[in-house]
Amino acid sequence: MSQRNLFYAQSGGVTPVINASAAGVIETARAHPKHFGKVLAGQNGIVGALKEELIDTSRESRRAIEGLMTTPGGAFGSCRYKLKGFDENRAEYERLIEVFRAHNIAYFLYNGGGDSADTCLKVSQISEQMGYPIQAIHVPKTIDNDLPLTDNCPGFGSVAKYVAISTREAALDIESMCATSTKVFILEVMGRHAGWIAGASALAANERGDAPHIILFPEIAFDEERFLSKVAQCVDRHGYCVVVASEGTSTADGRLLSDQGERDAFGHAQLGGLAPLLAGMVKDKLGYKHHWAVADYLQRAARHIASQTDVDQAFALGKAAVELALEGANAVMPIVERRSTKPYRWTIGTAPLHRVANREKKMPRRFISKDGFGVTAAGRSYFEPLIAGEAYPDYQKGMPRYTRLKKVLVPRRCKAWSD
Amino acid sequence: MSQRNLFYAQSGGVTPVINASAAGVIETARAHPKHFGKVLAGQNGIVGALKEELIDTSRESRRAIEGLMTTPGGAFGSCRYKLKGFDENRAEYERLIEVFRAHNIAYFLYNGGGDSADTCLKVSQISEQMGYPIQAIHVPKTIDNDLPLTDNCPGFGSVAKYVAISTREAALDIESMCATSTKVFILEVMGRHAGWIAGASALAANERGDAPHIILFPEIAFDEERFLSKVAQCVDRHGYCVVVASEGTSTADGRLLSDQGERDAFGHAQLGGLAPLLAGMVKDKLGYKHHWAVADYLQRAARHIASQTDVDQAFALGKAAVELALEGANAVMPIVERRSTKPYRWTIGTAPLHRVANREKKMPRRFISKDGFGVTAAGRSYFEPLIAGEAYPDYQKGMPRYTRLKKVLVPRRCKAWSD
Repeated sequence: MSQRNLFYAQSGGVTPVINASAAGVIETARAHPKHFGKVLAGQNGIVGALKEELIDTSRESRRAIEGLMTTPGGAFGSCRYKLKGFDENRAEYERLIEVFRAHNIAYFLYNGGGDSADTCLKVSQISEQMGYPIQAIHVPKTIDNDLPLTDNCPGFGSVAKYVAISTREAALDIESMCATSTKVFILEVMGRHAGWIAGASALAANERGDAPHIILFPEIAFDEERFLSKVAQCVDRHGYCVVVASEGTSTADGRLLSDQGERDAFGHAQLGGLAPLLAGMVKDKLGYKHHWAVADYLQRAARHIASQTDVDQAFALGKAAVELALEGANAVMPIVERRSTKPYRWTIGTAPLHRVANREKKMPRRFISKDGFGVTAAGRSYFEPLIAGEAYPDYQKGMPRYTRLKKVLVPRRCKAWSD
Repeated sequence: MSQRNLFYAQSGGVTPVINASAAGVIETARAHPKHFGKVLAGQNGIVGALKEELIDTSRESRRAIEGLMTTPGGAFGSCRYKLKGFDENRAEYERLIEVFRAHNIAYFLYNGGGDSADTCLKVSQISEQMGYPIQAIHVPKTIDNDLPLTDNCPGFGSVAKYVAISTREAALDIESMCATSTKVFILEVMGRHAGWIAGASALAANERGDAPHIILFPEIAFDEERFLSKVAQCVDRHGYCVVVASEGTSTADGRLLSDQGERDAFGHAQLGGLAPLLAGMVKDKLGYKHHWAVADYLQRAARHIASQTDVDQAFALGKAAVELALEGANAVMPIVERRSTKPYRWTIGTAPLHRVANREKKMPRRFISKDGFGVTAAGRSYFEPLIAGEAYPDYQKGMPRYTRLKKVLVPRRCKAWSD
């Protein structure tokens, strides 16, 4: 059979480097013109396949694809859309296969986290059952770093770097004014179920006593009294206290601390936020002057300070996915395997998707200090190489030059779809 | 008279580049050893002078002083402490003069905003009255960009750059997912009385329709209905809406929008925050999925992405202050004068302190678009050169290498002080 097309889609929350994986996929497929036809990208993720909105990446210049290496967000659009099980919604899978068949697509490369790995696995299984077998390969991506088997996930290293740098910078600010002003600073970071991002803030510290003084992990039950007593101790000892809190910080009964119901303000619902809540505790019980920040999307879009390691791995995993396709692999995910920490060496391995899908990898207890508020030496060693190197984008007039694709859709061959 | 010492202090909220001004002061004074003795820096600002905690900067290596060029925060410590009027608290001024006299200090260089300019002026006047005349020179600094006479203030350009980049990056994130996820993103930035920082976010846009779609300025009265209608219009037109809001956004009656009283949550005071408040409005009235971020100290400490123009000007103003001292000037402030916008050219001028102290420069109406939600071409032209150039710090193991000074205090010569 002659060249067959490859479908690529971005799924779930985007990262500063997901487009580097896209570049890895597209450049590698282009390097094998005898084997692959076009890379068709789903517009807005898998939804683009359902709607038959397929972006013809062959219409994008070599330079535009290179530009993806330094562009945050999801260049083809991503989505929060999970396919249901085959039994619940056979029509969706049938539609996917219909579109894939119509466009001569033999490879399904899905760039996402744990949910997407599950979808990817299902596409592999169901396409087989439906008599149109597709090689489904998952390209890992998540700032949360919570996929199993891989040593780390593309996206995480850059967010880790951003959070560690922001913590160090804010700490210098607070330290310089704590004698007469703010004594407690709270930074809320992402991480609903796993504390990897908050944990990486530990890299802000060079010496004992440096910020962050307290890290709150979803893995450690929050205890208000212990927290406040640690804050007071830090202020006594260092003159100030910097707290980095995972959004997923929860009490012993598993209740998200930030999920305290909504309160009236200005006649509207007040939307929580862990940082202001913690600040309220500090103010009420300890009376310290405080400030808080919520990094939210800024952290996961901060391509301006991406980790070179992260960019390299994101590209390498996209490339590896195409190479796996070339080798006939199916229902697998390329992973990062750490060969050595000092010096840092990594290679690409492979994991079967059924061992990846729907599993979350939390921070291991041995990476968290005994008191639950810090990171151990083992944890630091794990994090450190992941933030190494500064992969700066180009600038024009003081602003990063980010790439916008043309996103030309291929002509439709199927009927319109409605779910 | 032989060499006399120079006192330098940092005042008020710190900036990513206030230490570059310190470097300008110290390096320039060192370059004139026949005229100047030591630069003695107040530990924690003017409080260091009152307490006779004077840092001997001659004990800092040339390399350490160079390192100040790339280090955020206030390397000598800053403070929120305003001297009272002479009539209210004669003792404080007498104490200052006592310490200055004891340490042969003939020059008072105060690095701060509008309040500090006032203090600086008073020190000049009162030292004269007290028979120990001191040349008082103010070195401008404020991220708020609200000092009069100077075209712009050191500190602002870097915060502007950070906010513009963060806005562009977050917008790419939201744009790529808006079809199935977040439709409204709100970024709260600093600027209690003037909208300069929020205004600079306009540089995130390259083309019509680009984010930010709505900027909220303290200079424009907030009207909930107009705001929500504009949000809905943006979502209809672009699929998403990015809002950048000054913390000082106020209603027509002058009430801060964020100052809505405190509400219970988890048994504690809930500390406001404009972004969550606006998000609440959007959710209640429009029902869109939304996210919000509060940059807080991250924006004013973000040395990792400082503007080269800003660093250059911060250094130049510190240098100019010492040169003014050399020339015998008193009660003045060096300022930035814009000679040309395209190409950008600036020189250093001088302003008398009595025209600077306690005056705030707001965003001129002609920089704000007719509908009050955007920035005009004139505004963009003003902002653009201020964020030009990337003054990256050095990195080690993936983290910026920031300088810590030894901060050796000179021996005391006066009695202990208590206020």
